[in-house]
Amino acid sequence: MRRVLVLIGAGSAVFTRGLLADLISARDLGDWEIRLVDIAEEPLAKAVGLAQRMVEARGAGDHITVVGSTRRRDVLPGADFVVTCVGVGGRPGWQTDHEVCMRHGVFQPVGDSVMPGGVSRLLRTTPVLVEVARDVVDLAPDAHFFNYSNPMTANVMAMARWAGAEHVVGLCHGMHHVQHHLAAFIGKPFEETSTLYAGINHLTFIYDFRWSGADAWPLVREKVAAELAEPADPDDLGNIFADGTKAWNNPFSWELFGRYGAFPAAEDRHVTEFFPQRWEGGTYFGKTLGVDAFSVPEILEWGENRYQSMVAQADGTQPLDESIFDRSSGEQEQLIGIIRSVLTDSRDMFSCNVLNRGAVPGLPDDAALELPGVATARGIRPIAVPDLSTPLTAILNQRLTSVYLATEAAMTGDRDLAVEAVIADGAVTDPDAAARLTDALIDAQRQHLPRFR
Amino acid sequence: MRRVLVLIGAGSAVFTRGLLADLISARDLGDWEIRLVDIAEEPLAKAVGLAQRMVEARGAGDHITVVGSTRRRDVLPGADFVVTCVGVGGRPGWQTDHEVCMRHGVFQPVGDSVMPGGVSRLLRTTPVLVEVARDVVDLAPDAHFFNYSNPMTANVMAMARWAGAEHVVGLCHGMHHVQHHLAAFIGKPFEETSTLYAGINHLTFIYDFRWSGADAWPLVREKVAAELAEPADPDDLGNIFADGTKAWNNPFSWELFGRYGAFPAAEDRHVTEFFPQRWEGGTYFGKTLGVDAFSVPEILEWGENRYQSMVAQADGTQPLDESIFDRSSGEQEQLIGIIRSVLTDSRDMFSCNVLNRGAVPGLPDDAALELPGVATARGIRPIAVPDLSTPLTAILNQRLTSVYLATEAAMTGDRDLAVEAVIADGAVTDPDAAARLTDALIDAQRQHLPRFR
Amino acid sequence: MRRVLVLIGAGSAVFTRGLLADLISARDLGDWEIRLVDIAEEPLAKAVGLAQRMVEARGAGDHITVVGSTRRRDVLPGADFVVTCVGVGGRPGWQTDHEVCMRHGVFQPVGDSVMPGGVSRLLRTTPVLVEVARDVVDLAPDAHFFNYSNPMTANVMAMARWAGAEHVVGLCHGMHHVQHHLAAFIGKPFEETSTLYAGINHLTFIYDFRWSGADAWPLVREKVAAELAEPADPDDLGNIFADGTKAWNNPFSWELFGRYGAFPAAEDRHVTEFFPQRWEGGTYFGKTLGVDAFSVPEILEWGENRYQSMVAQADGTQPLDESIFDRSSGEQEQLIGIIRSVLTDSRDMFSCNVLNRGAVPGLPDDAALELPGVATARGIRPIAVPDLSTPLTAILNQRLTSVYLATEAAMTGDRDLAVEAVIADGAVTDPDAAARLTDALIDAQRQHLPRFR
Amino acid sequence: MRRVLVLIGAGSAVFTRGLLADLISARDLGDWEIRLVDIAEEPLAKAVGLAQRMVEARGAGDHITVVGSTRRRDVLPGADFVVTCVGVGGRPGWQTDHEVCMRHGVFQPVGDSVMPGGVSRLLRTTPVLVEVARDVVDLAPDAHFFNYSNPMTANVMAMARWAGAEHVVGLCHGMHHVQHHLAAFIGKPFEETSTLYAGINHLTFIYDFRWSGADAWPLVREKVAAELAEPADPDDLGNIFADGTKAWNNPFSWELFGRYGAFPAAEDRHVTEFFPQRWEGGTYFGKTLGVDAFSVPEILEWGENRYQSMVAQADGTQPLDESIFDRSSGEQEQLIGIIRSVLTDSRDMFSCNVLNRGAVPGLPDDAALELPGVATARGIRPIAVPDLSTPLTAILNQRLTSVYLATEAAMTGDRDLAVEAVIADGAVTDPDAAARLTDALIDAQRQHLPRFR
Repeated sequence: MRRVLVLIGAGSAVFTRGLLADLISARDLGDWEIRLVDIAEEPLAKAVGLAQRMVEARGAGDHITVVGSTRRRDVLPGADFVVTCVGVGGRPGWQTDHEVCMRHGVFQPVGDSVMPGGVSRLLRTTPVLVEVARDVVDLAPDAHFFNYSNPMTANVMAMARWAGAEHVVGLCHGMHHVQHHLAAFIGKPFEETSTLYAGINHLTFIYDFRWSGADAWPLVREKVAAELAEPADPDDLGNIFADGTKAWNNPFSWELFGRYGAFPAAEDRHVTEFFPQRWEGGTYFGKTLGVDAFSVPEILEWGENRYQSMVAQADGTQPLDESIFDRSSGEQEQLIGIIRSVLTDSRDMFSCNVLNRGAVPGLPDDAALELPGVATARGIRPIAVPDLSTPLTAILNQRLTSVYLATEAAMTGDRDLAVEAVIADGAVTDPDAAARLTDALIDAQRQHLPRFR
Repeated sequence: MRRVLVLIGAGSAVFTRGLLADLISARDLGDWEIRLVDIAEEPLAKAVGLAQRMVEARGAGDHITVVGSTRRRDVLPGADFVVTCVGVGGRPGWQTDHEVCMRHGVFQPVGDSVMPGGVSRLLRTTPVLVEVARDVVDLAPDAHFFNYSNPMTANVMAMARWAGAEHVVGLCHGMHHVQHHLAAFIGKPFEETSTLYAGINHLTFIYDFRWSGADAWPLVREKVAAELAEPADPDDLGNIFADGTKAWNNPFSWELFGRYGAFPAAEDRHVTEFFPQRWEGGTYFGKTLGVDAFSVPEILEWGENRYQSMVAQADGTQPLDESIFDRSSGEQEQLIGIIRSVLTDSRDMFSCNVLNRGAVPGLPDDAALELPGVATARGIRPIAVPDLSTPLTAILNQRLTSVYLATEAAMTGDRDLAVEAVIADGAVTDPDAAARLTDALIDAQRQHLPRFR
Repeated sequence: MRRVLVLIGAGSAVFTRGLLADLISARDLGDWEIRLVDIAEEPLAKAVGLAQRMVEARGAGDHITVVGSTRRRDVLPGADFVVTCVGVGGRPGWQTDHEVCMRHGVFQPVGDSVMPGGVSRLLRTTPVLVEVARDVVDLAPDAHFFNYSNPMTANVMAMARWAGAEHVVGLCHGMHHVQHHLAAFIGKPFEETSTLYAGINHLTFIYDFRWSGADAWPLVREKVAAELAEPADPDDLGNIFADGTKAWNNPFSWELFGRYGAFPAAEDRHVTEFFPQRWEGGTYFGKTLGVDAFSVPEILEWGENRYQSMVAQADGTQPLDESIFDRSSGEQEQLIGIIRSVLTDSRDMFSCNVLNRGAVPGLPDDAALELPGVATARGIRPIAVPDLSTPLTAILNQRLTSVYLATEAAMTGDRDLAVEAVIADGAVTDPDAAARLTDALIDAQRQHLPRFR
Repeated sequence: MRRVLVLIGAGSAVFTRGLLADLISARDLGDWEIRLVDIAEEPLAKAVGLAQRMVEARGAGDHITVVGSTRRRDVLPGADFVVTCVGVGGRPGWQTDHEVCMRHGVFQPVGDSVMPGGVSRLLRTTPVLVEVARDVVDLAPDAHFFNYSNPMTANVMAMARWAGAEHVVGLCHGMHHVQHHLAAFIGKPFEETSTLYAGINHLTFIYDFRWSGADAWPLVREKVAAELAEPADPDDLGNIFADGTKAWNNPFSWELFGRYGAFPAAEDRHVTEFFPQRWEGGTYFGKTLGVDAFSVPEILEWGENRYQSMVAQADGTQPLDESIFDRSSGEQEQLIGIIRSVLTDSRDMFSCNVLNRGAVPGLPDDAALELPGVATARGIRPIAVPDLSTPLTAILNQRLTSVYLATEAAMTGDRDLAVEAVIADGAVTDPDAAARLTDALIDAQRQHLPRFR
């Protein structure tokens, strides 16, 4: 039996490449038909080309086939797994958000989740995801359905509410990544550590961290105190490619740890965005967020180079980088583990973004939370997390307000609600300034915002 | 049959005087035994004395008797109605909050509900109210139970959660008052107007306002536009004793009306406190909040004078002011109407602060909301208010976060939670500054904070 | 301004006649355009004809116009009020349910709400109501929307869940009717009595009954005891046309009152159906339910005669019965009162069938309950009813189970779920017998059940 | 570090013996102090004696110490684990329930969960468990807290609601046991099978059963059909000691499987009690429930013999049965696995009875459900089970009604509510008969019912 995986938004190539590399190596997972989907013909062709070169290079043609389509409704029927990694507007859209925000005095290091840049991304992305989800519900209702598109929290909530896709699971490698950092920080093997956590994607609080079953926070605390007692090395601060294992890579996250006893994934680059009132003028430990701390232009350039290299490999103008078969790691990593746990019902645990529905008391039932979940043959099931502390619940509750407003604005094309979302987000406290910025963002992204007249 | 009303916190005298005046005049309500309670002997004696002079002055001794006690458990059994108007720390406590806050750069016009002054009041008041409520639940479980003490929202929530007094109803004349202002503003009799609204006490949004059943907002809008087009008269701005019927009495409330289509009770003096990020340095249309706009010292002095006059009347050193029998109006006003509706089951409507329990979707079930309620023989029952707009629901949700944190801090004596409440409130965004201010408030009020070591 | 009322299912004529009579008399309510809708041309023509004759007879043509249409989507735009009184299958369908049930040993006095006859009616009616509701949501989303069709509880729940018509209000004259009976029973004017109650339509428990604000249950109790101490007059038992004011008209309802301290509307004819385990073989105080107690054939014949008389009046073969203008009373009665309260925002109270949403703790939020509601200009708002007793809540909870199963069966055309609904209903405890009866009902009503293959 | 386990209700000896046997063998779990508690001195002494003989026999005195106390408050402080296995009234109380029920025509095979015998057990047991839970919350709030006492569902719900022990986890070996039976039935190793399920204790529906990740129901279905096609062997029917691996051991459970696609743990002996309307006069496939099918006297006698043997071993009048060290299996089995998973945070899965809180949509949040849970270092966390079918949810909802009524009756000592619980349970449909039976049970157990005057 050949299982079918449909990957929607395959044109970005990176995810496609990682997934293929992993599936080619994972012979225990059986035979696969991979259906790549993108509405843009050119990038789709490149992704299909790269995938096919990879299959050929490893002689995996007997157990893996790859096809492409620009029409998802044609290829959804029969899917066992559906994965979305759609990025409406792509890198240019991201760059625009970044520049418009800076012109209005708003500095942010990422812009994929919250603050005005996150709201803008939401407005153009969420309605598209909802439409995809409607097709999945219609044509592949029993498929395991995973989403990688940001803003994660909004997308999962909206796909559930407006498309009825209550079973969609948002995946992000952030939690996994940060647990690796914590393990490395105390010098223990990742496999011997365990965590409990809850939050919203990119602001997930790890409140329990153990090594071999015993509380590992005392080890952490001691090391953090020692490292932060030394002066910061500027190279550690706001470095996009830092591996997060030095305390000075994430001084703000460690401040939150000190205050709340919980370490926030996904570390300073993301976490600072959830506390905008703290960084007037974007000032972050002497640097400027999104400029010389976690520079957005730098990450955009890095992404473009990586993409061009993959195109060149697809076209054959550059040799295939076969090292990926040996050291694949990245966003797709969890997905292979989940597929394995689903197919064998082995009940492994993963972080998942799913509707709360009572898992964390004190947060709304219909909020998408990042929680530990068990991957069963019937899908990922979150576990109850009743012991997140009250102040953390309060912080999350306040952050969710903007998400509710922004998703409703996105779905209804209501500019006034979008302004309210920006106000509630907290980065811009003056209503008139918020309106000006929102209008500027809508104007700049109008081609991606058909619902806003 | 003589009905029994127990008034707890009677020493403040003002409420006692108004209530007695009304009951003496309301012969249709039958016979009453009024039991005045205060833990402070001296003020209690004054209140009892004043009450008895009033009864004598009107020859009402046959249908109204007044007794006093410093021990509420002695007089609760047999109560038909219990009313709390406790003010822990009194005017001096209020003054201290005001001064400490100003020293830390926080300016607020009232300090009875939110912002750091409101949090401080909550810390000393809420636990006392919970203890009172426990006694009511224990000794007079079937009595109609009303609370007038601020912070209203926190007190009602805490009495329900920690004392099981889920039936307590918080009363405040604010909504009634503001509807009077709106009616006067459009030149219509109050009795011909009607409102729908929801919110939390002192931030209740009137989203439907009618005259003779027809939408009255167009009339309002036209007049507001005309008045605000004229320059402000400084006397209208931040005047404590203004009657609220000029647009320039409440420019911020009218701004909110313009933005959200709903007018906020209880007007600028209270409403500004719920948007602290808007008034850096306390600046309010050229004045300073709590200083020359809605001056706190001025209101404290006015209150003291009023109290001393009542003491003098109680002592007989000043003649009894009998005009109150003719023109009683004030906080107690609603209470008489409610008692009448309860005794006759006439189903009149009043504003009430009660647990949400689904009345307003999108707000927590256990939040105390200010809602329209029907006074039946079995108590006040809120009506469902399913159509509060999404942005207003979002604003209320964010404001509630601090209330949850602060009540838990108050009940557990947890200083860290109190700091978190101040942070979540939004007036102080820097955590260290919030900690310093919170510590200063706890220190200054320590005599009233037995739970904080 | 001419207000527009759309009446869907107008062909049944009785409701149309009563409504017209009332509107013609109620000059204070202004001018109206009445749009009558029925999918059956012949009955629609009769209803329109009768209505027009009534308007002419009273010279009301200046303020009331009547039009007819078989296509509701044509006439819904512009509606201020929409009323549904659809009866899929009509009297013949009802008769079929009754006969099929009896052949399977199930005897029931009505068959419009529960037990197998109620389930059968639900299967054919609820999907049609949902389709109507979708059109109302689409074309007249701001109209006040009322439903009279049975089974009421299921229809309101389904219109909310599947059509998004969360604001639909189910109306039934039962509660009003029974309060009249209780007032007459103690010899007091209806206007001086008041009630509190909660339940599901046709099983609504009046737990508070007052005369002039005072508890009237003692008066009731004494009289019931005296009357039931006398032997029953067989004419009082199971008499369809009894006015319900003798204790022996409703011995079972009075038994429930004795046990639970609450009197169930809508009295024995309806209430017995909610306790099927009590009437083996249909035996009811020596008579047989649906046969000689509350005879279904008798009520069918009475209905047919009444209808034929109206047709004759419409055709002019019989003179118009003008007495209806003086003594109109019936199902439409409440509607006129509600319209008046809505147009003047006078906040009168009516019984309404609406989604629970927390009004009664311990019952599901999405259950349609019969509750006291306040008619505001923005629609009817139920009041909270937190004090229904635990055993009554339990009884209602058990009764709701079958409603959930049956509505889902109806909407999905799932025969197995329909069998489960019949089992959960409790009238047939053997699963195989339940399956046989359900299949027989589906088979007999197949023309009205397009969703069941 | 020596961990402390407090076992409350240790006098029953069986559980104590199994637990000790397992702990003695499990050297990887470290050192333990076992504190045995029972209010009855004699049985406590026997349990302590037996335990100490076991420790000595294996020379485990260095890592296991055993102490006894009749006062739980003395030994709760410092507990890491608390386990309750209290049986108020013991075997004599059980026997009385059985006999009283039979005299009133009610036949039931167990009487530990539902039907009138279960209600009676609840009335005497639940208040005691609540008192125990209050002490645990007070003195060992951070201990892992497990309950084995029946009726499980009621006890867990009541300990949460009345003692605030929201973290108590009810354990029962039923699910584990039945999964063993299912694995054996298809001839596969238990370790290669997996299940998903939800329900209330003793009526838990296994709706997903897999072998090596693949759906195993087809294998099951084929075998059941074949076995049930053969005539029943009377020895297989209602045999208390049958191992459940023949289809004719559980014909009713297989009937439910055929109807609902889910197999009910804990098989016919327990499951029949949840469908009392199916067994008029106790008739069960030609036998009588509780008499010759699942004979209660037989199980009582077996229990007594087993207990006497343990007493004899404790006293030394009989040699210690050391075989238990090799083949321990029984109720305590899961507990050791859970302790191991907690101490190492290994996240193994177990069945647990915990508050629903959204895990199963459509069932009340405060109902105790039997669910798959993950044992973490912070306690057992249930996973979400969103896909239990609608008819099964409906059946569970109806069954819970009686539990709510009975627990409230037990805690308040309200006889009328107890009658209502028996009516809602469904075994006795006539209210007068239910009242007579309830009164007879209360009368017979009066010594254990101090709350019932």
